[in-house]
This record gives sequence, C-alpha cells and structure tokens, in this order.
Amino acid sequence: MIKEAIYHRAMSPFVYKYDRETIHIRFHTKRNDIQSVDLIWNDPYDWHSEDPAMWNFDPDKPSFWRTFETPMDRIGHDEQYDYWFIAIKPPFRRLRYGFRLHDGNETAVYTEKGWFEDKPLDDTGYYFCIPFINPVDIFHAPSWVKDTVWYQIFPDRFANGDTSNDPEGTLPWNSTEPTITNFFGGDFQGIIDHIDHIVDLGITGIYFCPIFKATTNHKYDTLDYMEIDPQFGTKEQFKQLVDLLHENGIKVMLDAVFNHVGYNHPWFLDVVENGPQSEYRDWFYLRDFPIETTPKPNYDTFAFEKNMPKINTEHPALKAYLLEVARYWVEEFGIDGWRLDVANEVDHAFWRDFRKAVKQANPDAYILGEIWHDAQPWLKGDQFDAVMNYPFTNASLNYFALDRTSASEFRNELTRVEMMNTTNVNEVTFNLIDSHDTPRALTRTKGHKGKFKLLMMSMLTYTGSPCIYYGDEIGLEGEQDPGCRRCMPWDEAEEDRELFRYVQKLIRLRKEHPVLANGGSYRFNLVDDGDNALIIERCTKDETYLIYFNNSDSVSKLNPLGHTGSAYDLLHDRDVDSLEVELAPYSATILKMK
Amino acid sequence: MIKEAIYHRAMSPFVYKYDRETIHIRFHTKRNDIQSVDLIWNDPYDWHSEDPAMWNFDPDKPSFWRTFETPMDRIGHDEQYDYWFIAIKPPFRRLRYGFRLHDGNETAVYTEKGWFEDKPLDDTGYYFCIPFINPVDIFHAPSWVKDTVWYQIFPDRFANGDTSNDPEGTLPWNSTEPTITNFFGGDFQGIIDHIDHIVDLGITGIYFCPIFKATTNHKYDTLDYMEIDPQFGTKEQFKQLVDLLHENGIKVMLDAVFNHVGYNHPWFLDVVENGPQSEYRDWFYLRDFPIETTPKPNYDTFAFEKNMPKINTEHPALKAYLLEVARYWVEEFGIDGWRLDVANEVDHAFWRDFRKAVKQANPDAYILGEIWHDAQPWLKGDQFDAVMNYPFTNASLNYFALDRTSASEFRNELTRVEMMNTTNVNEVTFNLIDSHDTPRALTRTKGHKGKFKLLMMSMLTYTGSPCIYYGDEIGLEGEQDPGCRRCMPWDEAEEDRELFRYVQKLIRLRKEHPVLANGGSYRFNLVDDGDNALIIERCTKDETYLIYFNNSDSVSKLNPLGHTGSAYDLLHDRDVDSLEVELAPYSATILKMK
Repeated sequence: MIKEAIYHRAMSPFVYKYDRETIHIRFHTKRNDIQSVDLIWNDPYDWHSEDPAMWNFDPDKPSFWRTFETPMDRIGHDEQYDYWFIAIKPPFRRLRYGFRLHDGNETAVYTEKGWFEDKPLDDTGYYFCIPFINPVDIFHAPSWVKDTVWYQIFPDRFANGDTSNDPEGTLPWNSTEPTITNFFGGDFQGIIDHIDHIVDLGITGIYFCPIFKATTNHKYDTLDYMEIDPQFGTKEQFKQLVDLLHENGIKVMLDAVFNHVGYNHPWFLDVVENGPQSEYRDWFYLRDFPIETTPKPNYDTFAFEKNMPKINTEHPALKAYLLEVARYWVEEFGIDGWRLDVANEVDHAFWRDFRKAVKQANPDAYILGEIWHDAQPWLKGDQFDAVMNYPFTNASLNYFALDRTSASEFRNELTRVEMMNTTNVNEVTFNLIDSHDTPRALTRTKGHKGKFKLLMMSMLTYTGSPCIYYGDEIGLEGEQDPGCRRCMPWDEAEEDRELFRYVQKLIRLRKEHPVLANGGSYRFNLVDDGDNALIIERCTKDETYLIYFNNSDSVSKLNPLGHTGSAYDLLHDRDVDSLEVELAPYSATILKMK
Repeated sequence: MIKEAIYHRAMSPFVYKYDRETIHIRFHTKRNDIQSVDLIWNDPYDWHSEDPAMWNFDPDKPSFWRTFETPMDRIGHDEQYDYWFIAIKPPFRRLRYGFRLHDGNETAVYTEKGWFEDKPLDDTGYYFCIPFINPVDIFHAPSWVKDTVWYQIFPDRFANGDTSNDPEGTLPWNSTEPTITNFFGGDFQGIIDHIDHIVDLGITGIYFCPIFKATTNHKYDTLDYMEIDPQFGTKEQFKQLVDLLHENGIKVMLDAVFNHVGYNHPWFLDVVENGPQSEYRDWFYLRDFPIETTPKPNYDTFAFEKNMPKINTEHPALKAYLLEVARYWVEEFGIDGWRLDVANEVDHAFWRDFRKAVKQANPDAYILGEIWHDAQPWLKGDQFDAVMNYPFTNASLNYFALDRTSASEFRNELTRVEMMNTTNVNEVTFNLIDSHDTPRALTRTKGHKGKFKLLMMSMLTYTGSPCIYYGDEIGLEGEQDPGCRRCMPWDEAEEDRELFRYVQKLIRLRKEHPVLANGGSYRFNLVDDGDNALIIERCTKDETYLIYFNNSDSVSKLNPLGHTGSAYDLLHDRDVDSLEVELAPYSATILKMK
C-alpha cells in the first residue's frame, strides 16, 4: 500500500458541503494500488449510535461498533491517482469520518491523526470533521447558469449598427485586419440588428467585453465605470438592449476591470499632476514621485503596462465607489452577471464584499472571475461563482486541436480539471475553447473543421456553462489578439453556414437533454489510444447517453464498455440497433440508449 | 522518484503570504526519496527577466533562462514525508513558481499542470501562481500574543474573595470534590486578592472561562451575553479587575459561546412558550413544535444536550446582537481577546463579520477559536488568529505523559502539527497541555512530577502562545471534568512550591530569551529512541539554544548533532565546557551556546 500517495484534509475540495443536506467526500490513492475504499462515518456526538430509527440502521447487518462503513465509488483516474467519491447525508448535519483501504493483501485505516491497522474506537478525535452544515457557508451559484449557453461579444467587432457614434478614424467594416489600435465601430445597435443570429444559434447568455468609457478598442483601460463608452451608444440604448435580450431569454454579463484603470482616468491624472498632494494618491500603489513611466513605471501596474495603473481596492473610498458600480449596473440596468478582469490580483476581502453587494442587488446574479490558474481560493462560496475554465480549454486544445496529447492523456488532464474544484463549482464553471485573449480555436486546428467540431462537441456535452466566442460558429479564424478580434463578416459568402447548423444543433441537443449539460455524471467509458478515440458516458439513474469521438484520420468502429442494446443517434436523428458505431475520421456523435 | 507522494496546490498552507513582502512555500516528498528540491520562480510578467538591477541578479551565475532556481531547505520530516521550505520576496509582489526535484538518478520538474523532464519555457501558465500580495489578505494576528504566557481560570474555582455574592448552596472552599453541579463561590474579588500569585508566576495573559450570566457552575449555558453572572461580581468589579490586570501587564481574554444558549435563555423560553408564534423561532434550528426534549430534542443542540439549543447565527437580528456583544466587552471594558466556544460549529460568514467587529473595536484584539481538529479553514486570516492547539496537547501527552509514543514518533507528530498550519498561525497558536475540558496533565502522568516538568519544559520552549491551566503550577491534579475543575487550595501545605518555582523559571527564561518563544526556528536536532531522549534546537542567525529532554528512567548522556563548544546552562545557571550533557531520569535543561 503506497500510503505516501494519500493526502486528505477536511477542507475544500477534498470535502465540501454540496447542499443543505449533503457532504461530498473525495479521496485519491495511487493508481491501481487500492482495490476498495470504505468511508467510516457517524455523528461526532453519537459515534457508536445504535439508534436504528435515527439512522435508518439496518439491524440485519451485524456490526459491533455502530459507526457506518460505506463503500466509496472509484469515479476516475489519471496517470497518478485513482479518485474515489461518496455523498453522505448525515441526519444531524455533522460528520466525523475516516477511510478504510484494502489493497488485496492489507487493510489500513486513514484518519486525520494518521494511519491505524483498524479504526480507533476510544475517541472520535482521530477522525476528520465537518462540524456542521451551516447553510450560509454552502457554495451557492445561480441555478440558471447550469443551463446557459454563452456567447462572447467583443463589442467593437460584432456589428456596426449606428455610424453616427463611430469614433474618429473608424475603418470601414471588415475592411482590413484588426490591429491593437484600429476601430471598426461595433455598437449596441449592431447587436440589436443581429439579435436573430444569436437567438437562432440558441444562445441564452451574452458575455460582453467591456463597454464602459475607455480609450482603446478593447476598453480594458477604464476611464469611467459609471458611463457607457459613447462609441457603443447611450445608457438608454444599453437598457433597451438588455431588455431585448431578456425578452429573448438571454442573460447579460458585463466585464469589469477592478484591478486597474486607464492611465488617463481622472484619478490617475490627478496623481500625475499633483503628486503627493493628490487626494487619490492612496488609491494607487505609488512607489515614488513624480510619476514616471520609464524605464519601468514607478507605480504598480497590470503586468508592466504603464497605461494600466493598479488600483488599491483596500482603500475605503475607492472600495465604496467600486461596490456602488457593482450594484448600479445590476440594479439599474438589470444585468445578470459580472465577469471580472484580472480577478486574481485583486484582494480577497474586496471580492467578499463585492459578492455581498452584487447578491444583495440580485441574489441570482452570476459572478465570474478571470483566473487562468488553480482558482480554488476564490471558489469556496464567499467570492466567485465560477472562473473562466482555461484548464479545460488547454486540455481540449491539446487533444483535439494540437495533437499534443493522446486520448488517455486527455482523460488524465480532464480528470485533473474535474478534481481541481468541487462539483457545485464545476456545474457552473465557464467553459471555453477560445476567447479575445487566445487564438481562435479554428486557427488552433489549422483550419481543420472536423477537429474544430470535435472541440465544440466536447465542450457542449461537458459539465458547466459553455461559451462560444462570437464568430466561431461561422468559421471565423484569427491568431492571438489582435487577430482573434476580427469583424463578424455578415456576408453569407464568408460564413460557414454548415458549421453554424452543427453548433446550433449541439446547443439544441444540450437544451433538450439536460443530462448532456449538468443533469448527469460525466465518465470516460472508452479511452482508445490506438484509434485515438473516446466514448464519454453521461447518465442519471434513468438515462444513459454515450458520446463518441474519433480524433483520428481513419474510420473507427467503437464499442462502449459495459453497455449493449439499441439507441437513438441524436446527431443524425435515427435509431440504431447497436451501440457499435462507425465514425468517419474526425467526427463524433451522441447516442441516447433506449 | 515517488511522484505520487507529492501534493501541492497554490493555497494555504502549501503556500501563503507571510508578511507584506514575503511568500512562504512548503513542499513535501516521500521520506528519503528526494535529495534536493529547487524552487523555479520569477515574476509572472517577466518570466525571462534579465534585468539585474530589478532582481539583484548575479551575472556571474550563468543561466540561459533567467528564471531563478533557489534551493529549498529540508526543515523536517515525519515517517512519511520530508518537508521542504523556502521564503521568497518577489520584488513586484507577484510570483510564478514550480519545483525541480533531484533524487540522485533522475531530475524532474513539477508544476501546476503536472510533471516535466525540464522546465517548460513556452508559457508561464504551467506554473503555480501567487498573483499579488494584497496586504489585507495577509494573516495578521496581534504581535503581543507571541510573547504572552497565558493562565486559564475557571472562575468558580480560583478563589472566593467575596462570600456576599455566593450563589445559593455554595460549598465551603475546597471542602469536597467538584461535581457537575456544585458551586464553590469563586469570583472576581478572589482573583484580585490573589493577583500576586499570578504576577509572581510571570503570567502576561488570563483566559477566563465564561463569566456571563448563566445557570451552571461552568457558565457555558449563557442566559445573558450583556451581563456578568452575579456570583462573580458586578460590571464595576470586572472593570476594576481588567484595569488591575492591565496595570500588571496582563491581558484579558473572555470566553464566549456563540454556538448555543442555555435552555433557560429568554429567547428559547419564548419559543417553548409561544411555539411557531415566537418572534425568536428563527433564532434557533427547530424541527417541530411543541418543543420536546425527549427522547432526543426536536431542535438542534450542542451535541445532543437538550440544555444547549443551537442558535442560528445567520439570522440578521441575532447576528447583529452577537456582534454588538463582541464589540461591547472589547470597547467598554477593554478586554484583549475572545476565546470562542465550539467555534467550529458556527458559520464561517458569522466569524468573518465577527472579526471585522472585534478588530474595529480594537485592531490588537486576539481571536481564539476552540477547534480540536484540523482548523485550516478558519485560519486563513479572515476569521481566527489562532485555535486551541489540542493536536500539540495530544502529541505532548502521548510522548511525555502516556508513553504511547517513542521519541521519533513524537518528532513525527509534532512535525505534522507544525505543517498543519502556516508559520504566522503557529506563532500565535494557543498551546496547552490540559484545560477544563481534559484531565489535568499531572494526572495524565499519574502524578509523576518529572514527566510533568518535561511537559512544561516542552510547551514553554515551543513556538506559539502557551497557557497554564490554573493550579497546574502548584501540582493540582484531577481527572476529566468535573475532577479537573478543583478549587485552588490556597494552603502552602497543599501547594508544590518547588514546582511553582520550576514553572516560574521556565516562564522567565522564555521572556528573557525570545528565541525560546517565537524568535527562532524550531528543529529536532537529536532524536534518540534508544535513550528515549531528544535535543531540540532553536536558533536565529546569531544565537543557538539547545533544549535537552531525557524521557527515560535512566541517566542519559546527550550530544547534539552538528554543534560543539561551550555554553551556558540556563536552567541551572552555570557555564558548561561541553555540549555533552548528562541528564537525570525524566529531566530536561536548556543550553545557550556561546
């Protein structure tokens, strides 16, 4: 028994409160080392309970000590670990627990105080403890997010519906490649004009890149958090847009930059001008006066970007202002969520109060942080509902787009992504295959449409809340920004309508079959490195869906493990007699078992 | 290389912000598997920095990629793991990092995205991330706690200075054994009368068990959080006591029970009487009406104790009241800290607001939770400053009192205790060898004074904030409560004055030599299972102290590893020519190296 491979603490994500009654416990052991794991558990104050009424105790199961021992499920593995899981509903919302491991030769008990040959009986103090399921501490995200399919819009590039608000030097629509500095005049009216496209695709949420007053085309250098940038329209138009989207069942999420402002923000200009006398001097992290930008800025910035001075979110007046911003757009305009730029560099205390302000304005608002790395410290229920799931992006691109990983390596990566955060986080996490900050997915596949479709299939049948970057659905390409911020062509000749219909169908299937979204478990059924193929199994106790992927250049015939019978092929709308499926190169399908 | 033994996440306690400039990183590997670990690190936005001015870069050290690689220190081990440590001061308060491991044959790089043969160079995204050291997020406890030696008083049993406030049925002082229900009339005047005893011992903080109005002798069944129990005195007397203690350099910590109230609290009696119509119905967790106490209470309680109904700390009005309680005693009476009973069963959101209320009243107040198990979720800087360090208690008793563990097992347990929480937590953690909730330590040693002295020596030379349970210093014994809550005899004939002088001297040495408290590292220098002996090394870069323990029934001659020379024996006040020390059975001493 490789005991060193085991690490468990009574803290998230090893153990967490899933809902008001349920505690989820995860455990990992060295791959293929342990045959079974039993959870030893009971109430902390009734460790030897023999009260059958209280515990639904089965008197036919002989047990000297009335602690419960319940087998855990082996729910997956990567190259290093097997992962075990159990959900427990302790009647008094309190739990002490430990683990009994069997490797075929040996049995051992693992507790908070270390290893024992058998379970210690003299004291509950050995055991891991969940003292009480206090409702307020349970991670709780808005339930609508689970069912949402997002569409990300970079406003300057979606559509120009009103040339009267174009900034000076606006270029004719789609007349040239995007650069860091050019403008194409996209605006709210453009979105209103093209809402049919979005509705038709099946979108139920839009994530807007920043729309507040700023200098650049990307607007990440805020000049005024309380004003719409005039190039996009007015507040009235924005309200009209929000209402229109709501009427069409589409939620609205805005992008806020609370880590830094633009150099030309009046606060910072005041500091530049007045130095130590500025009333805003403590709103920034200034290291010296006068303010200098070379060779490196003598103030903290986003990265080393002199145009983006970092703001001090601990400063009470600044903090109060930003929390008012958070409230204002939710309460006055009815937006449904905030996407938070560079969220990881802002203090946790700010985000806790931000959450309170937003949820007070609308308990059903979604809070999404931009964090590319391990985000566990922000996802414990007191800060964000979700983060942009770039670890999923990377795993997906490595396998389907870049051929950097094998099927089993993809399984390993995706299993690690799943284990990184808790299930209630995973159910609302923001999945994406590209964004305004990455090359377009179709460009990552070098224009290979089959591989791109596999990416879409994978994301749209995965746990969480998927997001499609504007234009991906019609075959838009583009390298790392600014290339990935190209104009929507709005010209049927330049649009891949077949691709549109494919994505549209996947979205429709996801909505019609909630098991494909967040209604069922997600397991790797078949992982075939030889054929570079996969079958994913998604099921509830009543329904089983099998998603087949052939990520190779030859035809593959795939058979799921542990299932036989007939099914309905959802992608091709036909009955099939067998679960053996022949897949063309770089193709996928979904069977619903009968 | 046993890669499965490694588990690291960019979260506490694996990595944490120690102060405004410093990040601490810990790492564990299978015991004896890895020869060295180097931290690979740099600024997230300047990963290949070649700017020597910015980084104090040493141009003589050739390095193609300018990421830094700095060896980590192996600071300890237990039976399973070697523990590695490094403190890093990143100039821009941001850090990306990974680990390079060498086992003699093989080298491997471990990152957030898994294992590599060499460090990946194409993207910083592989690496663990500390995005920014925001000051407000740094764990920050009051600095006075590091230097405090506590004394815990169970008020009914310390001294009866005023018989006029004795509750009905009060027994003559120390006339009989304590029971669950009897009273001896201890009060504030008794403490005032005997303050010399406390000052003489060298105490600098008193932790009072509850003093608020309640029914029982222990007062954990609060009836009124805003009133002193009349058996102890008045608010005026309490204020006088606090002032007197402060004049004597002694801090005051009160015990608050925010998990439950007494059955007879007016709120609960109102619920009992008015059922669903009671305005307090949502202040409790009631499962049914009318309120019933048998066979089990039909409302949530502490444990299954019908006399202690659990209160709903999420209820806004109740929460506001309790936060006012928190403020009131700090602001109006100048108390210096709160010890929080059954702190683990109260919600985290409550504790976050409790911290804000307390620290607003006095930023230098100490917040101590009663948590017996792994308390990491409460010790991240947003809730408690410390918890009662019962894991330390257990490790100490197992070795010095109960002979359950060997010297090396003690080392293993204590190392695990150290690694459980961060260093800034460990520096203010509340160490104890017994309390009102456990048998007395001298009873655990079966009255063996030598072993008891080893326990005291161990605690009073350990990191953290030690606490002496009233009477331990004069040889008071007692089994699990109520036995451990005996009256102080106040009769020289019944007091072990030699023991008093021993404890007094250790306290004095701890104060005179801060390295023995929180001024230096704590390492196991010698662990000798054959002789059942230990040498602990505590040092700074200027000073080295060696603490010798002989926990056997024969004379031991001990030599530290890696040190030679002469020293001063602090316990026996004499110079010694050699570091080889001959120790009588069950004895200890402290050498300060010259």
